Amino acid sequence: MATRNYEGKKFDVNEINTIVDALTVEEALQININNKAFTVSMRTPGEDLSLVRGMLHCEGVLNNINFSPELTIKKENENGIVTIVNVDIPEHELGEGYSNSRSLLSVSSCGICGKTELGDLSFIGKTIEDTKKINIDLIHELFNKMSVLQHDFKQTGGTHAAAAFTIGGELLCSMEDIGRHNAVDKIIGKLIHSNQLHQAKIITVSGRISYEIVIKCFKAKIPFLAAVSAPSSLAVDYAKELGITLFAFCRDQRATCYSNPQRTKINKTNTKAS
Amino acid sequence: MATRNYEGKKFDVNEINTIVDALTVEEALQININNKAFTVSMRTPGEDLSLVRGMLHCEGVLNNINFSPELTIKKENENGIVTIVNVDIPEHELGEGYSNSRSLLSVSSCGICGKTELGDLSFIGKTIEDTKKINIDLIHELFNKMSVLQHDFKQTGGTHAAAAFTIGGELLCSMEDIGRHNAVDKIIGKLIHSNQLHQAKIITVSGRISYEIVIKCFKAKIPFLAAVSAPSSLAVDYAKELGITLFAFCRDQRATCYSNPQRTKINKTNTKAS
Repeated sequence: MATRNYEGKKFDVNEINTIVDALTVEEALQININNKAFTVSMRTPGEDLSLVRGMLHCEGVLNNINFSPELTIKKENENGIVTIVNVDIPEHELGEGYSNSRSLLSVSSCGICGKTELGDLSFIGKTIEDTKKINIDLIHELFNKMSVLQHDFKQTGGTHAAAAFTIGGELLCSMEDIGRHNAVDKIIGKLIHSNQLHQAKIITVSGRISYEIVIKCFKAKIPFLAAVSAPSSLAVDYAKELGITLFAFCRDQRATCYSNPQRTKINKTNTKAS
Repeated sequence: MATRNYEGKKFDVNEINTIVDALTVEEALQININNKAFTVSMRTPGEDLSLVRGMLHCEGVLNNINFSPELTIKKENENGIVTIVNVDIPEHELGEGYSNSRSLLSVSSCGICGKTELGDLSFIGKTIEDTKKINIDLIHELFNKMSVLQHDFKQTGGTHAAAAFTIGGELLCSMEDIGRHNAVDKIIGKLIHSNQLHQAKIITVSGRISYEIVIKCFKAKIPFLAAVSAPSSLAVDYAKELGITLFAFCRDQRATCYSNPQRTKINKTNTKAS
């Protein structure tokens, strides 16, 4: 369900061919809370309940990780793709992410939702405190492990990936989605469902890092975040403030750490430090 | 204002260096309508009024392109970055994008906002009818023209770009932003302000194409959309339905057309068609 074949007309330097390409599926998923429409997410189908559980946690709709809401598939379309999921949440379990807005919108690659005042974007006095260190060599191994599992990307070139690891580098789970923030929500939801979130210490992502990915990482209390591509200024600002060690440009055996580098270590004896 | 320097610790195979990197600035812009908070956009500062005008048009908040709302900068932060813009719009000019939701949220790389029911995602019976054809060779020239102007990307690797062209390939404007949909909103807003939107027939974008970029293109009545990278399934579905000729994977002198290929033509006599 994550890819679908489309016919295309491919223009190359010297020829035109009619081809069939696998494209990443992007479909709308409506999330209801207590049977009222809450949001529409544009996502790649699959692991929908993980997506919903992760989104509820990362957006602060449901802060109590030990409460397991009932997630019910309410509707599927003619292709068997889920179109509506309902979540039952008793009123006293609903967090500020619910009350901030009932029309939170989580769309491909976005994550800050239901916040219409600038003040809502600030977090005060909360920091991930974790004294564990990560060996830089490990970072590259993690991306290799994630890369092997990017099946949809290899077919379509159109998906983002995210993966979660233990501090020792053991893969806990890996997900792909058209939306980069969906991929992160899916891994966090999956880890909540499998009761493994406390083991997750490192998240890797295939693309860039903007603000919202850092916030999701923070909500999941994950101290290390590493990306293949560039971070934004705000991503680094928040990573510093929230106690997240952020690596970017992790490719070709290189990586740049932009925040909390005290949690890094190196093994090599021949490495020069400036 | 579009880039900012950050210190990083760069780990390479054999050395560690403290470096200073330019990162793409991502900052929150609150958009008020008639002095009430309407949305927060996470964007790269610069061309803020173009962003707001384009967003209002593309999201259907203001459908009348001939009405020029007063855009007022209400607040700047200590760095001179705009944080709040107000737009005065008489009630009778407010479109369905306003009434659908007062808490529309436009975030880096997202574009479908304020829509909490699946039904809101459908468009019926509206198609761009345009009989002009595009020469495939021109597509590659357009990307070359846009590429020259991707100044922030060359510094940061962290911005998306979008550009608008006439049917003859004349550049009308080009913009960069941390959010791909912001870059498109900015060019459309800029073209509305300069009264050139009717001349724009082709939009190029630097990244992938998901649903919302197709919708923005449609709202601006632009028949050609071309991307460097992959489209999603829904992007192609809507491009077909809305009468947009969509090209993707436009690189290395190749391009694949996934919808409305009747608007393409080739000059070369030595090109074989299958």
